[in-house]
Amino acid sequence: MGSHTGKVICVGLGPGDPELMSVRADRVIRGSKHVAYFRKAGRAGQARQIVNGMIGPDVAEYPMEYPVTTEIHFSDPEYNRQLAEFYENWAKKIAVLAETETVVVLCEGDPFFYGSFMHLHSRLQGRADVEVVPGITGMSGCWTATGIPITWGDDVLTVLMATLPEEVLAERARDADALVVMKIGRNLPKLRRALATAGRLGAAWIVERGTMEGQRVQRLSEAEAVVPYFSIVLVHGQGRRP
Amino acid sequence: MGSHTGKVICVGLGPGDPELMSVRADRVIRGSKHVAYFRKAGRAGQARQIVNGMIGPDVAEYPMEYPVTTEIHFSDPEYNRQLAEFYENWAKKIAVLAETETVVVLCEGDPFFYGSFMHLHSRLQGRADVEVVPGITGMSGCWTATGIPITWGDDVLTVLMATLPEEVLAERARDADALVVMKIGRNLPKLRRALATAGRLGAAWIVERGTMEGQRVQRLSEAEAVVPYFSIVLVHGQGRRP
Repeated sequence: MGSHTGKVICVGLGPGDPELMSVRADRVIRGSKHVAYFRKAGRAGQARQIVNGMIGPDVAEYPMEYPVTTEIHFSDPEYNRQLAEFYENWAKKIAVLAETETVVVLCEGDPFFYGSFMHLHSRLQGRADVEVVPGITGMSGCWTATGIPITWGDDVLTVLMATLPEEVLAERARDADALVVMKIGRNLPKLRRALATAGRLGAAWIVERGTMEGQRVQRLSEAEAVVPYFSIVLVHGQGRRP
Repeated sequence: MGSHTGKVICVGLGPGDPELMSVRADRVIRGSKHVAYFRKAGRAGQARQIVNGMIGPDVAEYPMEYPVTTEIHFSDPEYNRQLAEFYENWAKKIAVLAETETVVVLCEGDPFFYGSFMHLHSRLQGRADVEVVPGITGMSGCWTATGIPITWGDDVLTVLMATLPEEVLAERARDADALVVMKIGRNLPKLRRALATAGRLGAAWIVERGTMEGQRVQRLSEAEAVVPYFSIVLVHGQGRRP
């Protein structure tokens, strides 16, 4: 890549509040000429909305629309095939552009923490210079929103995806001191049962739209049955404290 | 606290690179008149060093010097007594100051994630208005430094403190998909043995001074026996990816 004059910079946008992105992310985005971001087809896209007002009309935008989100289950080989093709096509386009231009890829939260950019990152190896700017994770935004520290002393923190089977969720929840569960959405009823089995339901909180307009912080036991996919469930640690 | 005109703002400084603090943290620090931070007696203090050049000579500084760090083991009641007194004294001073002034408390990483500020936060309840600005965690800075994503698909991430007993470390390391271990320092030999027992030593990385000058990223198996306390050990997840 030594001969390339361009590169790819993936910037972590943080949990949603634009003021919570890093000084570097802010500078990179405001100076960008080519901006790519993931979104669901037909939607504005959360990442793009966070940078509203930060990029001008002269900037070239590349919305990368997922061919599938939850219409096909992720265990179906077709889900995998369509997504692999999608990431490969975009890696190719971005690599060509990055030969001469700086391409900024927007990524909610922290790019290397369960982020979609990782699937481009692996495919860009050897094809483009890639830089990653870390971001505040969605979970940090959410536990800060509860007003209660998440981990103390030598608490063990476990981060789980609610897409896991119920018995796995229950076992992991029982063994954790502090707990974060992501990818909630339609998995909420299963997660509730798992937390009840583990004896952790009473201590669980749910944060919707953490750090953003419409933020909602509730005890999970008092929350409705339907919540946005990007909600986060938390159980705070109770570890050692002087 | 309705009658108070001042408040406490604890700002997460992120992993160390000043450009990785949030836009809000940057703004709060540059506008501050009273700044408090923790440090080891006789040291400049990591938090204070991160904001070098951001606060002027007219700003009142309050270095909060730990009465004890590793001289007494944390299981000794004397450790607890000295630290409790220390936090109580500073909570009192800051609460009085925050009746009329805005007091900015600097905190490395993310304040609610294993941070010392939490011990002031709990003692300031009912005594002062407190705001917390989340930050990029040290672990995010470190996994970004390795150039490899930490978690994929439905990987389970476990965060451990190396202060835990060897058998606990080994068991937790075996059960995790992706692993982060903090508070390394003199616990390194024990951690190495635990990771070897768990069959994870070969896949482990160690990051010293992540995102800062002198950053060092190595395979743990190739690292020296002595590393700084704030080093972080990582094992990357290998989960589902299209």
